[in-house]
Amino acid sequence: MSSTEEIKTFQTLFKYQHSFITFKVISTACELGIFDLLRESGELLSSGTLAEHLKTSPIGLQRLLEACVGLKLLTLEWKDGKDFYGNTDFTNLYLVKSSPKSQYYSMKFYSEVMYPSMQHLPEVVRKGKNQSSSIYGTPNVFEIIYRSKEELQTSSSFLNELWPVLGREVLSAFDLSQFPLICDVGAETFKNHCLPSEDSQITFHAGGGVLIVEMLLDEDKRGPSTAHFYSLLMLVLTEGKERSATEFNVLLRKAGFQKIELKKGSLFHIILGRK
Amino acid sequence: MSSTEEIKTFQTLFKYQHSFITFKVISTACELGIFDLLRESGELLSSGTLAEHLKTSPIGLQRLLEACVGLKLLTLEWKDGKDFYGNTDFTNLYLVKSSPKSQYYSMKFYSEVMYPSMQHLPEVVRKGKNQSSSIYGTPNVFEIIYRSKEELQTSSSFLNELWPVLGREVLSAFDLSQFPLICDVGAETFKNHCLPSEDSQITFHAGGGVLIVEMLLDEDKRGPSTAHFYSLLMLVLTEGKERSATEFNVLLRKAGFQKIELKKGSLFHIILGRK
Repeated sequence: MSSTEEIKTFQTLFKYQHSFITFKVISTACELGIFDLLRESGELLSSGTLAEHLKTSPIGLQRLLEACVGLKLLTLEWKDGKDFYGNTDFTNLYLVKSSPKSQYYSMKFYSEVMYPSMQHLPEVVRKGKNQSSSIYGTPNVFEIIYRSKEELQTSSSFLNELWPVLGREVLSAFDLSQFPLICDVGAETFKNHCLPSEDSQITFHAGGGVLIVEMLLDEDKRGPSTAHFYSLLMLVLTEGKERSATEFNVLLRKAGFQKIELKKGSLFHIILGRK
Repeated sequence: MSSTEEIKTFQTLFKYQHSFITFKVISTACELGIFDLLRESGELLSSGTLAEHLKTSPIGLQRLLEACVGLKLLTLEWKDGKDFYGNTDFTNLYLVKSSPKSQYYSMKFYSEVMYPSMQHLPEVVRKGKNQSSSIYGTPNVFEIIYRSKEELQTSSSFLNELWPVLGREVLSAFDLSQFPLICDVGAETFKNHCLPSEDSQITFHAGGGVLIVEMLLDEDKRGPSTAHFYSLLMLVLTEGKERSATEFNVLLRKAGFQKIELKKGSLFHIILGRK
């Protein structure tokens, strides 16, 4: 390896090593309300003004603001030696709480539940299943997630937040006009804290169908990383895993679905199985 | 924003949101000894064989191995329906413990100390300084880091590990032949757990010099992100901050250093100040 190549490779390692800080910069800025305040004010604000309104230390906040600029979440202008910050389009679209496509509660859920859970990944991999009993004192992590009204809002909003971003793609993937009734089974399962028991399982009649919105693993399992990450999150927190298209096909055929169609989406893919 | 652009933007958000999982995949694979075992064996090993040797669940390990493949840390070959894994060059260079340029202990240090500390970033930003007293029960986090011999090894190896990667660049930046004695002050300070007190401060005689190896912030503070991250890590764990070249200049001139030279490195920059 040439020395230039080696430095590039080392920079990749460095990026990986600091990747969790990227996440914490964003979730902290959300939590402190920086993006919401900048959106509401409608003008650039100095770090001093922001710190005053948000009741934080000016030194601490300025350092966080600069990190947000580095990640292109904020703009920074200098006027007479004073720093002025504003939201970028990206931030206004996805991180401001009031945006129709906001992912604010997803970030909160990831920050409060998933980030600390991932600290237990070595233990979970060793045992092959979630360690909620020993970590949270209950086999069902959702008992913890749903402890308070606020936590309930965080995790159900997290599910709802994907819909304004991906809903159009999901609903236009297939002609669903022949189905008079659509029932969201996944969210219901999530809210009821567990996988359905044998006797609460749903029976599909002839003419009925199931629409699955999922990440798909490549057939050779080499990617994509986002599907791998979802599989690991499920391993750490709940049950279940991501599958390849072929594996979904097998699963659906076993359950008696005959006509199976798949449409690749931008991030999630859409599978329709009909009886 | 066109719908294609919007999907690309959303993928960026998604990448940020899952960035901490990238880190935990790598640190967990290091901790479980996957890369070391593959290096020692010198051949591709199946997930079953790896799980047996590493005493982990085959299901849990397979999921972690696949995530490593997605991140290009491992290769995956299929033979007769069985999965076989091997290290990539990247992994052999930086993640295998025995490699001369290994960053194994850095990953361990980041995983055990920095990852959980970052969970307290909102509190630290609010207060403007590290919250070690309330989080760790001591104002000095290094008391915790150095609790055991093993922890001492982890954090001093972390400092030592950068040297084989960056040392050549640092030592060739300037002609240092006029300095008969070189003393590593930074590592000593780190090992002594705190910033030097007034009476342990070093006096430089005429002809003496100080060589600083640091990330540099851009003059307009807009980047680079790695320098912002270092500044935040210092805010969370210790004291200190990153500076721009101009700020270093001011600092050194105040301390009586006259001839100040700067050489940009690949990741860290090198500043020589002479009295």
